[in-house]
Amino acid sequence: MANYRLTIAYDGSRYNGWQKQGNTDKTIQGKIEAVINAYEGADGSIEINGAGRTDAGVHAKGQIANVQLSKSGCANRLREYLNEYLPEDIRILQVEEVAERFHARLSAKGKHYRYSICNSPVSADVFGRKYEEYIKDKLDVDRMREATEYFLGEHDFSSFCSNKHMKKSKVRTITKIDISVLGDKLEIDFYGDGFLYNMVRIMTGTLIEVGLGKRNPSDMRGILEAKDRQAAGATAAAKGLCLMEVYY
Amino acid sequence: MANYRLTIAYDGSRYNGWQKQGNTDKTIQGKIEAVINAYEGADGSIEINGAGRTDAGVHAKGQIANVQLSKSGCANRLREYLNEYLPEDIRILQVEEVAERFHARLSAKGKHYRYSICNSPVSADVFGRKYEEYIKDKLDVDRMREATEYFLGEHDFSSFCSNKHMKKSKVRTITKIDISVLGDKLEIDFYGDGFLYNMVRIMTGTLIEVGLGKRNPSDMRGILEAKDRQAAGATAAAKGLCLMEVYY
Repeated sequence: MANYRLTIAYDGSRYNGWQKQGNTDKTIQGKIEAVINAYEGADGSIEINGAGRTDAGVHAKGQIANVQLSKSGCANRLREYLNEYLPEDIRILQVEEVAERFHARLSAKGKHYRYSICNSPVSADVFGRKYEEYIKDKLDVDRMREATEYFLGEHDFSSFCSNKHMKKSKVRTITKIDISVLGDKLEIDFYGDGFLYNMVRIMTGTLIEVGLGKRNPSDMRGILEAKDRQAAGATAAAKGLCLMEVYY
Repeated sequence: MANYRLTIAYDGSRYNGWQKQGNTDKTIQGKIEAVINAYEGADGSIEINGAGRTDAGVHAKGQIANVQLSKSGCANRLREYLNEYLPEDIRILQVEEVAERFHARLSAKGKHYRYSICNSPVSADVFGRKYEEYIKDKLDVDRMREATEYFLGEHDFSSFCSNKHMKKSKVRTITKIDISVLGDKLEIDFYGDGFLYNMVRIMTGTLIEVGLGKRNPSDMRGILEAKDRQAAGATAAAKGLCLMEVYY
């Protein structure tokens, strides 16, 4: 057996997210597993582990997965085979043979997500429209930056999690949040040890409300303390979110 | 009567180009005219003049058009109306009231087109795949830059024109061609007083053949002198081309 690590980029627009569902056809994981099983001549028994279960419509430039295959030494051939048979909105950027203990999700130490916004009074950008949220009213970026300070460090992020039934710890550590502005484009970069279901999108939706003057930066403290999803803002649209990198 | 100048961006992927055909539904001009006629309560008699007749699949970030309307003083309202009723892959960036003599095509003094290429040994970029040509084999950019020198200045570009039946002069002046490289992305920027049918795409296709070592930079001289479409290289794919700006 040999363990392979895959670096994957995808345009999530057409998919029901990363994680395989009964019908594998409309998920990224399902598409990749189908091609890997064909490559191995397997009957569907080969499964891949993804680092992050991106939601429907969310994109990735650096998703990581690993897969156990029968033979070693076929990293480049596997990458070329995958890129030949996968749809053009899923691309395998790299395949490397790694130690047997490497597991894309369990070994991950941190992740970098980016949320992209087009903040123009005129219109959305036709070339970015599938990859960024459009907001017509002017965002006050200084207020948004001030609000991000409250998220840094270790907190219980229950207020920023859509899954009520999750019983595991909702404590996560956010190490950095950068908001960069170029013309009418905003990029919010989130770095942390892990993110709960919808966490980045709810943080972004809340930051947008701060930027629009509907909430104050200092409200973030109370929202975190409430440990209640209802206390936070709306969940920002999936299409603006992209998994940029996974750290090991 | 009042004359309005429109600055237009579009993702040309879904369209049969700029110029209205019998069936207006699948052209950019047709889409915009339909909405302007609705705005004016007209029966389809209002026509717009575009600066450049971009081909099927070609994009624009700065197409210019002008249109004569009955009332002055409604530039902002027209822009908002158009952006509300046009499909999201056509956006009106600006509407200005201009002198009556302004004509988007006849008044144009020059244009800037950009051809975008992804030159990666691994795969196309999922996020750029609709807006750039993918070339797997390494392009020699220095050779391509050398070849562009032969295009500069005033020449008869018959070899770089797909329309055999065009009887007008095929003499054009190219003022500048820049090739910029960022990682595995190439952008070829063409500036000139005007461009023949398919001219930028045929020049790009020929430059790609130079970059791949299939032709020499100095071959450009003979291709221009031949005044024969067969002498030049292939027509590069439409999706890589974008009309960036029109100069007046």
